[in-house]
Amino acid sequence: MRKIYVIGIGSGDPDQLTLQAVKALNAADAFFILDKGAEKSDLIQLRRDILDAHIEDPSYRLVEARDPDRDRVTPEYAPAVEDWRRRRADLFERFIADDLGEDECGAFLVWGDPSLYDSTLGSLEEVIRRGNVAFDHEVVPGISSVSALLARHRTGLNRVARPVQITTGRRLAEGWPEGVDDVVVMLDARQAFTRYLDQDLFIYWGAYVGTADEILVSGRLSEVSDRIEELRAQARARKGWIMDTYLLRRG
Amino acid sequence: MRKIYVIGIGSGDPDQLTLQAVKALNAADAFFILDKGAEKSDLIQLRRDILDAHIEDPSYRLVEARDPDRDRVTPEYAPAVEDWRRRRADLFERFIADDLGEDECGAFLVWGDPSLYDSTLGSLEEVIRRGNVAFDHEVVPGISSVSALLARHRTGLNRVARPVQITTGRRLAEGWPEGVDDVVVMLDARQAFTRYLDQDLFIYWGAYVGTADEILVSGRLSEVSDRIEELRAQARARKGWIMDTYLLRRG
Repeated sequence: MRKIYVIGIGSGDPDQLTLQAVKALNAADAFFILDKGAEKSDLIQLRRDILDAHIEDPSYRLVEARDPDRDRVTPEYAPAVEDWRRRRADLFERFIADDLGEDECGAFLVWGDPSLYDSTLGSLEEVIRRGNVAFDHEVVPGISSVSALLARHRTGLNRVARPVQITTGRRLAEGWPEGVDDVVVMLDARQAFTRYLDQDLFIYWGAYVGTADEILVSGRLSEVSDRIEELRAQARARKGWIMDTYLLRRG
Repeated sequence: MRKIYVIGIGSGDPDQLTLQAVKALNAADAFFILDKGAEKSDLIQLRRDILDAHIEDPSYRLVEARDPDRDRVTPEYAPAVEDWRRRRADLFERFIADDLGEDECGAFLVWGDPSLYDSTLGSLEEVIRRGNVAFDHEVVPGISSVSALLARHRTGLNRVARPVQITTGRRLAEGWPEGVDDVVVMLDARQAFTRYLDQDLFIYWGAYVGTADEILVSGRLSEVSDRIEELRAQARARKGWIMDTYLLRRG
């Protein structure tokens, strides 16, 4: 039976891998790597560095493929993601069926934690539903980008006995979530926090957390918002892409 | 300058420590361990096992103290926690001032991730505000009990482009959070999920995740609720305490 590991590798710092993740890396015969295009080639390099740092026997195989493009202009966000996930599942199926021997072990490397805003598990479930190739799979949890961000800011996700919401920039742009004073925002390409400058909010923001490019800003949202916008624009221009997350906390 | 590490040690599996956590453990001269009473002595043993497994030089010191009792009958939950946190800060201050030399390094070990429903950072902030002892501190993120639970169930925290709320059993008992279909519940001593048996919900439940005592149940809430109640009661009777978490997902 083929075995697949879905391994959370943390948000960029190679020391953020768990011992369990290192063991899983060393058990894998082949790694499946999706290339998101030239502008993110330093992410691929970071992933290769993690393999080099932690794998003892260098005889593993790397299988690389181009991540399917996602329709980013349609207002129908969820269907576009579903379509993209389906095409991804085609690639996953081919990897498992064609690139792994029947008793071999393959691995998907996921930034952060596989449970949080990542589609690897969804694509694998689709491969299982199709039933064309049999495999067993195991998930190795990782340090999420949220845990990494808050550790660097030395603050908590929730306050005593209070709830917290994790949401997307797209949703935050539509309105503040009901009933919560602490909101973590992911995948925010449009700086949805700028909608809330008139409110008594504190922001803990970070980009490329855990890597050499890490940028951290915290403070009253109305006071640091401009600076975050500026840093984002500079970083984007310099690197071609940005990976950032933030916590908004009502005062 | 004294240095304090707040180290997330995952939810029970010693292999869930990160390499960064192992390095921090090995940098510490003394560990501060709070004893929560005899009924949780196996948790203390688990923590000692983690130290034994990962620390190379066994000359470290263990400083143990009895965790202050919290008033669990008052309806004023937050003030009771605040009072308990204050008394905890007294203990923390004494540890840093009296048990560490001026150039030494101390560590607090936190189950899961220090950002999620843990009061160590809050107590340390209180020590800083008081200003009686100077120290630098660094947070080492850990695998949260939520990531560990979802990895074992091989499912995601959020669905595509959707938000997720993390809340307490006490709050869930008061009503379903507005605007979300995925809710993670922590610190639920009263099985608040039983309030929602008439709804189309799926539950992913786990207790002692990552340890030898791990119990996992998933399924339609209305179908597995009785079984979870039964397993909780049995486990509590057997071990004297329970540490469980769950995700409720609207169908």
